[in-house]
Amino acid sequence: MKNADNQINENKATVLTPDELLAHWQGHRALTRRVIEIFPEDKFFNYNIGGMRTFAEMTMELIGIAAPGMKEIVVGNTEKLREDFDHGGKKSAILKLWDQSTEDINNYWKQLEAKDFSKQIKLFGEYEGTVISSILYFIDNEIHHRGQGYVYLRSLNIEPPFFWER
Amino acid sequence: MKNADNQINENKATVLTPDELLAHWQGHRALTRRVIEIFPEDKFFNYNIGGMRTFAEMTMELIGIAAPGMKEIVVGNTEKLREDFDHGGKKSAILKLWDQSTEDINNYWKQLEAKDFSKQIKLFGEYEGTVISSILYFIDNEIHHRGQGYVYLRSLNIEPPFFWER
Repeated sequence: MKNADNQINENKATVLTPDELLAHWQGHRALTRRVIEIFPEDKFFNYNIGGMRTFAEMTMELIGIAAPGMKEIVVGNTEKLREDFDHGGKKSAILKLWDQSTEDINNYWKQLEAKDFSKQIKLFGEYEGTVISSILYFIDNEIHHRGQGYVYLRSLNIEPPFFWER
Repeated sequence: MKNADNQINENKATVLTPDELLAHWQGHRALTRRVIEIFPEDKFFNYNIGGMRTFAEMTMELIGIAAPGMKEIVVGNTEKLREDFDHGGKKSAILKLWDQSTEDINNYWKQLEAKDFSKQIKLFGEYEGTVISSILYFIDNEIHHRGQGYVYLRSLNIEPPFFWER
């Protein structure tokens, strides 16, 4: 039989804390950064399979979603989704944007409270969901495209980083 | 200023409930099932890119992880990870295993309490982590391999299902 104390402990028990979710996401982002780094510069910008986008294009989608998405969740202003950034054909330009995003995500995250995760939002003026469903989408979408990057690398005879290394 | 009531509400606020996490996972599993369905039977078992595994082999890894992993989390007995199942070259055999896993996951999930998610485990006698980190790994690993299946399909000129349809 449960007593009142147990009841409270169960109510407070959480599947995942905000800090754990951030660490999980940033762990994935660190792995994606290693995948970007391992791509030969020309293949990053020019190579694809089956008419799909280059890994550079997929990466720019991820950059366009992550920090701007978090900004919108925290600050509330809606901007259009942007998937193209100046890079001059240099991976270093993309990696700089990536690292800036890492910092920005951490900073916006600090402004998020546990109770915010269930709020309804319409991200980039288009995508309806809760804060948590949106953030899970950011992470899932990154894993999805990074998995595609792994196939590009393998088809180029390049060994991708271990999936479980974060 | 926060009063005692607000404090309690914040403590109870959770990023994600167990039910939401299950729905999230099963949503992904429903999408992966559609990817299996859309593969031509011969390509499912024989096609690969860059020396990678076939999508059938990746799928069997997912089947070997999901329900057996949940069983171990809930029941506690450790079995070795199994990644090969009898299929006789038939997708229907794999889909049957998939659907049985769907039911099994739901049944094991009912035996899981919120406070269990932070428990330390050593899954399949090999992989150390918490219950939540293990379940997130199951989901992430599925998204990763399914993303690779998307490249296989695109390279075969087959349109995969929309990623956001669950």
